[in-house]
Amino acid sequence: MSLASRLNAILDAKTTPLVVAAHCDLPCGVYDPAQARLEAQSVKACMEKYLASDDADFKTRCLIIKEERCEAVKHHLWVLWTDYFKVDHLKQFPNLHDLFWMATKTAGDAKKSNDVNIADRLLSEIDAIAELFWATKK
Amino acid sequence: MSLASRLNAILDAKTTPLVVAAHCDLPCGVYDPAQARLEAQSVKACMEKYLASDDADFKTRCLIIKEERCEAVKHHLWVLWTDYFKVDHLKQFPNLHDLFWMATKTAGDAKKSNDVNIADRLLSEIDAIAELFWATKK
Amino acid sequence: MSLASRLNAILDAKTTPLVVAAHCDLPCGVYDPAQARLEAQSVKACMEKYLASDDADFKTRCLIIKEERCEAVKHHLWVLWTDYFKVDHLKQFPNLHDLFWMATKTAGDAKKSNDVNIADRLLSEIDAIAELFWATKK
Amino acid sequence: MSLASRLNAILDAKTTPLVVAAHCDLPCGVYDPAQARLEAQSVKACMEKYLASDDADFKTRCLIIKEERCEAVKHHLWVLWTDYFKVDHLKQFPNLHDLFWMATKTAGDAKKSNDVNIADRLLSEIDAIAELFWATKK
Amino acid sequence: MSLASRLNAILDAKTTPLVVAAHCDLPCGVYDPAQARLEAQSVKACMEKYLASDDADFKTRCLIIKEERCEAVKHHLWVLWTDYFKVDHLKQFPNLHDLFWMATKTAGDAKKSNDVNIADRLLSEIDAIAELFWATKK
Amino acid sequence: MSLASRLNAILDAKTTPLVVAAHCDLPCGVYDPAQARLEAQSVKACMEKYLASDDADFKTRCLIIKEERCEAVKHHLWVLWTDYFKVDHLKQFPNLHDLFWMATKTAGDAKKSNDVNIADRLLSEIDAIAELFWATKK
Repeated sequence: MSLASRLNAILDAKTTPLVVAAHCDLPCGVYDPAQARLEAQSVKACMEKYLASDDADFKTRCLIIKEERCEAVKHHLWVLWTDYFKVDHLKQFPNLHDLFWMATKTAGDAKKSNDVNIADRLLSEIDAIAELFWATKK
Repeated sequence: MSLASRLNAILDAKTTPLVVAAHCDLPCGVYDPAQARLEAQSVKACMEKYLASDDADFKTRCLIIKEERCEAVKHHLWVLWTDYFKVDHLKQFPNLHDLFWMATKTAGDAKKSNDVNIADRLLSEIDAIAELFWATKK
Repeated sequence: MSLASRLNAILDAKTTPLVVAAHCDLPCGVYDPAQARLEAQSVKACMEKYLASDDADFKTRCLIIKEERCEAVKHHLWVLWTDYFKVDHLKQFPNLHDLFWMATKTAGDAKKSNDVNIADRLLSEIDAIAELFWATKK
Repeated sequence: MSLASRLNAILDAKTTPLVVAAHCDLPCGVYDPAQARLEAQSVKACMEKYLASDDADFKTRCLIIKEERCEAVKHHLWVLWTDYFKVDHLKQFPNLHDLFWMATKTAGDAKKSNDVNIADRLLSEIDAIAELFWATKK
Repeated sequence: MSLASRLNAILDAKTTPLVVAAHCDLPCGVYDPAQARLEAQSVKACMEKYLASDDADFKTRCLIIKEERCEAVKHHLWVLWTDYFKVDHLKQFPNLHDLFWMATKTAGDAKKSNDVNIADRLLSEIDAIAELFWATKK
Repeated sequence: MSLASRLNAILDAKTTPLVVAAHCDLPCGVYDPAQARLEAQSVKACMEKYLASDDADFKTRCLIIKEERCEAVKHHLWVLWTDYFKVDHLKQFPNLHDLFWMATKTAGDAKKSNDVNIADRLLSEIDAIAELFWATKK
């Protein structure tokens, strides 16, 4: 059984359907904070690998790749903010703008540092956004 | 509670940790078939919106965006095939190559058509890959 | 004499220096709303050329290129919002978030339409942002 | 008042309208050497920040970002050369080709060095191009 | 035997080594006009398939893909012009600039048309450039 | 005479036409392993230049550019594997999947190393693929 099937089966058993949402400007209607989160996990892994290594070239590659992954986090969050969330959502969640502003700023900070705490902060800010996102799907 | 939190809570209760995996060439170790699946859902949504519309410009935009989304599916699958799966996995799953070859070919077919059956085939091929993927994580 | 020189000469004569600002995540410190505005002008031109033509292929190319230009507008605005503006600016301009949210949403709307009014709205929203931006430079 | 507004107000008072020009292959008719100049300013800032820092990782990031910004300069100049300038312009400005060739070569040199003189040369070459450009707009 | 081997074997027999040349800004020293030519062949094929089809969606896809392929032609030619050719080459081939200007303009024209003659002109302009290129390799 | 002309002339004399093939998802029908090979040559040159230099910044640039070139190799090979080769080819060449899997894995390894042997292995794996490719064209 596939992951989605496994998850759906488990969640269905709890009567909460797994709605996996969408992300383009058609709009196709498919959005999912998981895209930003996966990139943020990669950012954290780049930091951890950077810190654990003493190979200068490998550390340089960690920086190169982390730079790209942070940019991907920012992009996925920006798309979610502008394209998915609507005026009604803002009324319901007045901190919506600040959550996204801070999370994208943290993704920028993660380019400039290998401090895993920054990656952890980024992950928890994305989780907070995901919580709002899934609340709108109920 | 966010999706990840919900899933973790439910899965924790079943003593199966949710390992969300990784995707760059560092390698950072983070891979997840969910990236390909989300894009494939978007492909399907583009087809459905194309079929439901009679606005020529909108239909053109469906084609433009579907073209990009299909390419994204292919890219995510190729990365998974080359970067995540190892020789030992191939021994365990001798159909590994064919699964990826067929799924990426289907993503190519989805550029050329608005037949939702092709998108459904793509989704089920990605689910079959996800099943192998998660089996390697046990 | 170059444009910048001409402008500087004219502005200098008025004792208002032309500070052209910056845009990457180093951060290099160079930001300028002109980047978003140029793309928005291109969006408007795509619409106008679309409306003035009756060549189906040319109109399709207008849609393809407008899609890209709108995305460029969004990108430049998102970068400005997250990277340039700071918490102190937000205190000074409490409508900062809404300005960017609305302008990026309008850029998304401009993908979906050839109504020149939408491009004009986009341009004036970018001008409003530029006004805040240049106010912070004083 | 926004920059564009300020400039227009000042220039209007001098009866010289500010024509901001264009950049895609529709062609949309919007070209502006300012796009190349902004990227070149960013190149210079990357060099300055590189020289002022003794943090090895930060210096690496300067190199990564400068590489991209130089490429952006080249791209904007190439587009201007091929798409905006016409055979009649070449008759009027026989050094047109050399100006662009040299400026794009300088942008390549700026990838290979942190010598601010190279960035200054790049900026003045772009200014020379901008001068031709604006002369054609009169 | 591989293509390169086959070609080398044949060419070796004629005492003319096959030097395949290079294309990045390191510079790595690898340039080859074949990159532009392959994309131009694709441009021509897009036109031919467009002309032979009466499926509106397929024709739209021809336009989308041709737009990208033409851009790739331009990019490969620009890189060759700026990065490979040096001042000494220009002395030897005074028409160097015009060849590249015209060829990149033709690649722009090929976006705007499905006239196969334009693609043929583009191919022969690239061949003329390749001739200069290979002359410098002797 | 251009390269293509020279090659065609030589090959024609041997009654083996030079078919230069194609690479997009239209499909335009134009594929050529030369695209992957050129990038792999660039990868090798990046390694050689890295090894021959003792300028830390230059070595960093070698790593940045090699990272991109390796990615380009992978992309060109993936496209060839999924888009050009068909089920009938697989019957004829049962090792088709393994050749591509190994070659793309080697391109990934080349990101992680400056060992020229890896680049040589990559080149010979691409040559083996080119051999199959050209065999299908007979």
